[in-house]
Amino acid sequence: MLKLYQSPDSCARAAHIALEEAGADYEAVRMSLAEGDQRKPAYLAINPKGRVPALVTDHGVLTETPAILGYIAALYPDSPLALPADPFAVAQIHAFNLYLCATLHVAHAHKLRGTRWADDPAAIAEMRRKVPDSVGACFQLIETELFHGPWAMGERFSICDPYLFVFAEWMEGDGVDPSRFPKVLDHRARMAARPAVARVNAARDA
Amino acid sequence: MLKLYQSPDSCARAAHIALEEAGADYEAVRMSLAEGDQRKPAYLAINPKGRVPALVTDHGVLTETPAILGYIAALYPDSPLALPADPFAVAQIHAFNLYLCATLHVAHAHKLRGTRWADDPAAIAEMRRKVPDSVGACFQLIETELFHGPWAMGERFSICDPYLFVFAEWMEGDGVDPSRFPKVLDHRARMAARPAVARVNAARDA
Repeated sequence: MLKLYQSPDSCARAAHIALEEAGADYEAVRMSLAEGDQRKPAYLAINPKGRVPALVTDHGVLTETPAILGYIAALYPDSPLALPADPFAVAQIHAFNLYLCATLHVAHAHKLRGTRWADDPAAIAEMRRKVPDSVGACFQLIETELFHGPWAMGERFSICDPYLFVFAEWMEGDGVDPSRFPKVLDHRARMAARPAVARVNAARDA
Repeated sequence: MLKLYQSPDSCARAAHIALEEAGADYEAVRMSLAEGDQRKPAYLAINPKGRVPALVTDHGVLTETPAILGYIAALYPDSPLALPADPFAVAQIHAFNLYLCATLHVAHAHKLRGTRWADDPAAIAEMRRKVPDSVGACFQLIETELFHGPWAMGERFSICDPYLFVFAEWMEGDGVDPSRFPKVLDHRARMAARPAVARVNAARDA
């Protein structure tokens, strides 16, 4: 059985939603980032990166959200997450999620995780100040260039959708006005209405 | 035919090496990042992200190095880059490259690309100051946890190897002492000796 180490206020939420979309048999283990669960020895033995998510499988531990999403899609080819047969279409799905991971999420991380890249408090505050600009620029590119509609990659739902959804939920907290991005906002509303998301929210709020 | 927009001093070098490892029929278009080629209108029409690499294919344009590497591997299943049949092994390859992309490369980018995340020159200087620490911590994790040996993922060469190689070449420039990481250093030497790398270097130095 799959076991997902996750936190509802992290990008691990995307993997959690994906497991629900897939109809997977899994267990979710909730971590408190505020309490530093991800840096405690018991968890570092599972994921030495000290981050969530981590997916424990019968074959070993998998980390990195886009890799976990791709693996869930591969495990459940009859689910809405099924990957297309065409290698180029698969590569485009990976490219979309890579942009979310390595550009959008990284921009967002400068709000609360500035100590990864600087020690001086003034520099960390300056990074935080720029987050609305840098995250906003990412959503601008998504809105005008990367998002196909009605789902992220077009007519077909994919592992891009739960991942985009999680970052879109963070817009207000990042100081970004969602009304600038009507496609992303409409996508967020349709994602929020999905039963898989409702089930993940129910687990969070239980 | 494939056309790779690349710069020898960027992570696009990994995609270039992969095309040579694959024995691909391709054209490499050299961009000067110093002259801002990646932000000129002609290139933004190809890749609106304004970054290299971009791979122009018969099906469209693909961006994001790990996605490009995965696509090259899928196109050339008889090459040394061939992906394994097991989905978990594929996911582990993606996870390794995601760490390079979203953690190691991001740490490195704080040396010269600080304006992505701050405007104040003092903050940008502070980010640059921390690069040896943050990049060094990434190589520490690679050396002790992620690298299997003799190749990045074990006995089998993969798309992780050219990608790791490129970042390993940057260690000295990032203020990281390579002698701290004997596995990575040995891997770098074996990669540098491969004919595919020699051909990419010859094109760079022509």
